[in-house]
Amino acid sequence: MRDDPARLSFERTATDGAARTGLLKTGHGPVETPAFVPLATSGTVRGLSSAEVEGLGYGMVLGNTYHLLVSPGPDRIREAGGLHSFMGWDGAIITDSGGFQVFSLAHGGVADEIKGTGRRSGGPAETISIEEEGVTFRSYRDGSLLTLSPEASMEVQAALASDIALVFDECTPASADRDYTAASTARTHRWLDRCLAWHEVNGPVGQAVYGIVQGGVFEDLRRESVEYVTSSAVDGVAIGGTLGRDKEEMGGVLSMTMPFLPDAAPRHLLGIGEVDDLMRGIGLGVDTFDCAVPTRLARHGMALAPEPESRYRIDLRKSRMTGDEGPLVEGCRCEACSNHTRDYLSYLSRAEELTAVHLLVGHNLSYVESLMEGARRAIREGRYGGFAEAVIGGAVPWEA
Amino acid sequence: MRDDPARLSFERTATDGAARTGLLKTGHGPVETPAFVPLATSGTVRGLSSAEVEGLGYGMVLGNTYHLLVSPGPDRIREAGGLHSFMGWDGAIITDSGGFQVFSLAHGGVADEIKGTGRRSGGPAETISIEEEGVTFRSYRDGSLLTLSPEASMEVQAALASDIALVFDECTPASADRDYTAASTARTHRWLDRCLAWHEVNGPVGQAVYGIVQGGVFEDLRRESVEYVTSSAVDGVAIGGTLGRDKEEMGGVLSMTMPFLPDAAPRHLLGIGEVDDLMRGIGLGVDTFDCAVPTRLARHGMALAPEPESRYRIDLRKSRMTGDEGPLVEGCRCEACSNHTRDYLSYLSRAEELTAVHLLVGHNLSYVESLMEGARRAIREGRYGGFAEAVIGGAVPWEA
Repeated sequence: MRDDPARLSFERTATDGAARTGLLKTGHGPVETPAFVPLATSGTVRGLSSAEVEGLGYGMVLGNTYHLLVSPGPDRIREAGGLHSFMGWDGAIITDSGGFQVFSLAHGGVADEIKGTGRRSGGPAETISIEEEGVTFRSYRDGSLLTLSPEASMEVQAALASDIALVFDECTPASADRDYTAASTARTHRWLDRCLAWHEVNGPVGQAVYGIVQGGVFEDLRRESVEYVTSSAVDGVAIGGTLGRDKEEMGGVLSMTMPFLPDAAPRHLLGIGEVDDLMRGIGLGVDTFDCAVPTRLARHGMALAPEPESRYRIDLRKSRMTGDEGPLVEGCRCEACSNHTRDYLSYLSRAEELTAVHLLVGHNLSYVESLMEGARRAIREGRYGGFAEAVIGGAVPWEA
Repeated sequence: MRDDPARLSFERTATDGAARTGLLKTGHGPVETPAFVPLATSGTVRGLSSAEVEGLGYGMVLGNTYHLLVSPGPDRIREAGGLHSFMGWDGAIITDSGGFQVFSLAHGGVADEIKGTGRRSGGPAETISIEEEGVTFRSYRDGSLLTLSPEASMEVQAALASDIALVFDECTPASADRDYTAASTARTHRWLDRCLAWHEVNGPVGQAVYGIVQGGVFEDLRRESVEYVTSSAVDGVAIGGTLGRDKEEMGGVLSMTMPFLPDAAPRHLLGIGEVDDLMRGIGLGVDTFDCAVPTRLARHGMALAPEPESRYRIDLRKSRMTGDEGPLVEGCRCEACSNHTRDYLSYLSRAEELTAVHLLVGHNLSYVESLMEGARRAIREGRYGGFAEAVIGGAVPWEA
């Protein structure tokens, strides 16, 4: 591990069991952890302005190297002065490596089990080859051939000038056997070295790099990967790859990984963001999460809610809410809940009005930020276990 | 004309030639005029929350009886306590009568010339019959038969409980000859009487009613209509129907109508909202305008701008703005202009990101509100002519 406050510093401020609060100091302001990182996939949190995302309490978003490479391309973003100034976002930015998306194409939905694929509809999108050198794929935008390799991914992320870059890795599918996973994990480690070597020479000043722990569902491979990643000069650790076929297996995989990470390292869990998963991840010591779930659900008319029996979501297009004058979630401070009824929001959602998406993205991100705030408070007060159990059981985070 | 402050009062506060400023006091707050009234077609200004519309400086929106009749239906809105509480909007609401939309269907786009049609894509929508009693049409939502008549329109508007209702009229197309227009205008007058008779007995307490002046492009018919409407018990006057085939003819039609309206009556110009038309309308004494243009343009990637040679709009999907780090419109106070570059906004628009629509609706409505603010200031300062000329010539409203 590297410890260079000019790139990134992480200070633990409280612990409660394995859960911890902290302050992640980036080149674009500090982020209180545990924190959720909304996806600004293609340079925007879909449906919200950058100022609105900040207004919801977020200090960091995640940009997707794969999507931004395809459009508008790294040159344009470099010329705009990096992704921060391109998208008018003064907070911190973490960028992924593109590995998840290109391997999703190759494996036919690498992580459909719990993560959903990175594939976008519309154009031709396919992986042409996966080799030691890197991955070649066809742009979904114009069919042109593009390559991502450790060096190419770092180069794109250098153009994006994110505060935290992620190394290029293969995200193994849950269906991969031990042999495949072992070989893949070993390659991910070789790729980690290439990423760090490129970044050491060419990386932008102040950009931190997180390594990614792979190893699938195999305990020894996860341990090996933890050791490899944490012995290299990374500024933080992300946990990637399949986390299993279901939530139970996910808990198992996290449990064979988290305890072996150094306390001082900031820990990011890739692609996980359902309400109960966030609660369990924080309990196991995760500091930051990114996930498409809150924003993608909103685009499909679904609102996060304290309802465990329906996966903590309400489908506003299907629920019977006509005449229901109550708020979406009683006590939620978001605009949808402060100013509108379930009746109206379900009407807007069924009518597929843009305003519905706008209000629901705001609600879902506000709700997740309330979860994070509640978790931070509970950890500081030494009652995180009870908090998480209450939220998983159906309590709203501001009362748990 | 009726003068009942318990329904509506209008106080002229300054005049400059025919242009005037005023205060329109509705049951939901006062509106400074001249004012633009954004369309909340189906119960939302598409892409913005009600609070955001208010934040842009608007005190009144327009709801479409036709669309709200089709979905979600007047019963649901009545049960929600009216359109204000249904959509969470505390400001004033004017509702149109549905006449424009049902006649647009019948006439195959009544006002394509300058207004665009009210037709929505998607479902089956056709007018089945036009008779003295009313108009029967097929719902674009589910194909069911619906009827709008003077009484039915007022009944829907009573359920919506708007502050200002509009009488049911026929919007004659520019292609109509004198005979057709005369017969249609006479029927519109009979319908006016039926609307007022229904409203007198059944209208909600406090709801004002505007009559609609028709008469096509024929001076004597317009004058006749002005006389008929202003001798009836209406609270205000709207100018409807075709305003001609082009902007010049529109000026002519307005000039044969506006001078004959009583000074004390509030005057609404239906369906007009391009930058130069707004400036000319205000110069002729119009107090309020509604129009789909600012919001519809935004949904198609077009931003209002002080550019007369391109109809005061920039097509962000077509313009070459890559690398242009300037704001959309220098000095504009909206969020798109304060916080984002042309480069980014054109990228978002081409990518058809929701955020582009959200930001552009905000920009276009902010820009129009700046036009109105500028006009009110210029009228108060006795320099409206110069202001309007400067804006029409390409000045930004905050510098004209």
